[in-house]
Amino acid sequence: MSETAELLELSKEAQDLLFRDARTVGAFTDEPVTEEQVRAIHDLVKYGPTSLNTQPLRVTLVRSAESRERLVQHMAEPNQEKTRTAPLVAILAYDTAFHERGEEVFPGRGEMIKGMFADEAARDTNGRLNATLQIAYVLLGIRAAGLAAGPMTGFDAAGVDREFFADGSRKSLVVVNIGTPAEGQPPFPRLPRFEYDEVVTEV
Amino acid sequence: MSETAELLELSKEAQDLLFRDARTVGAFTDEPVTEEQVRAIHDLVKYGPTSLNTQPLRVTLVRSAESRERLVQHMAEPNQEKTRTAPLVAILAYDTAFHERGEEVFPGRGEMIKGMFADEAARDTNGRLNATLQIAYVLLGIRAAGLAAGPMTGFDAAGVDREFFADGSRKSLVVVNIGTPAEGQPPFPRLPRFEYDEVVTEV
Repeated sequence: MSETAELLELSKEAQDLLFRDARTVGAFTDEPVTEEQVRAIHDLVKYGPTSLNTQPLRVTLVRSAESRERLVQHMAEPNQEKTRTAPLVAILAYDTAFHERGEEVFPGRGEMIKGMFADEAARDTNGRLNATLQIAYVLLGIRAAGLAAGPMTGFDAAGVDREFFADGSRKSLVVVNIGTPAEGQPPFPRLPRFEYDEVVTEV
Repeated sequence: MSETAELLELSKEAQDLLFRDARTVGAFTDEPVTEEQVRAIHDLVKYGPTSLNTQPLRVTLVRSAESRERLVQHMAEPNQEKTRTAPLVAILAYDTAFHERGEEVFPGRGEMIKGMFADEAARDTNGRLNATLQIAYVLLGIRAAGLAAGPMTGFDAAGVDREFFADGSRKSLVVVNIGTPAEGQPPFPRLPRFEYDEVVTEV
């Protein structure tokens, strides 16, 4: 346990569960992930902050065998088998018309939000950014539920979007496998992290 | 307390600290944020997952009064005063040449990472996405330290980049104010969140 852990208000157990002991996993037991668990994760991570509360993340749970194969064909080869066999797989995407929900998420500011993101390029940049913040909340939420996440960006996003969101209503950002880690997972030690002075500068 | 909270392994105290009770804050007390606190946050959130462990996030702490003014001029008007007066402000950006650090973050895969992200468009998409995941880890890390975060996307990113990263080495994504909430903060109730069925679909 790092001595800096003592400086945080978050308990050491929670630090370990979410960050220090948690690892990305590629193989899982057969134990199913229930809708109740996914609802509990949503009910926690929905509170994470987004710009103007826009919450552009949309989640597609890929459960049926047929849907799973439709997804797997667009995954990079090293991600195919784990995506085929994980107890639950989710496509994490953003709503390309999130600005139209402005009045629901920020009562009184709906028109302002619509106007700010009327431009498609501005909407794309902001939708991606905020949905990606929410993806990180989801990854930590999966861990908070006592499960392991295997997030992946190695897939053909345009192919996934054609396959699942042919109307252009969503664009995929990350695919995540979810479940209980198989024994011996992950099979390799944690990769190195950048030290403070490599990441943080002061002006 | 929501009944779904019981279904999670993460303690209720931690759920409250990171998500349920935590709020975005715009005004702070004068209590300083120390380098020791920022180091403790880094030492926790550095473990959050990124694609191929690339860790493209770079953090610029804006402490001096002169630097603060250089930043404030590029903030949207509603964000100027809070950015001027927050105990600590950080520019959260991504390293536009993160792929060159591949061998450090993933020993044995350095050349592969360099090759995968040799294309500037691919590098930009992936760098933004992974740094944004890391930004969410930082926001939760600030809360883990018992502090409040005021993340903002309302600023002229191109202007900030010209001002602070004129060599093109970084591109800014989010600016965050950090400190202890002033009394009565935030002054308005939490905004609505989308329900499960509005966010999650199954195929």
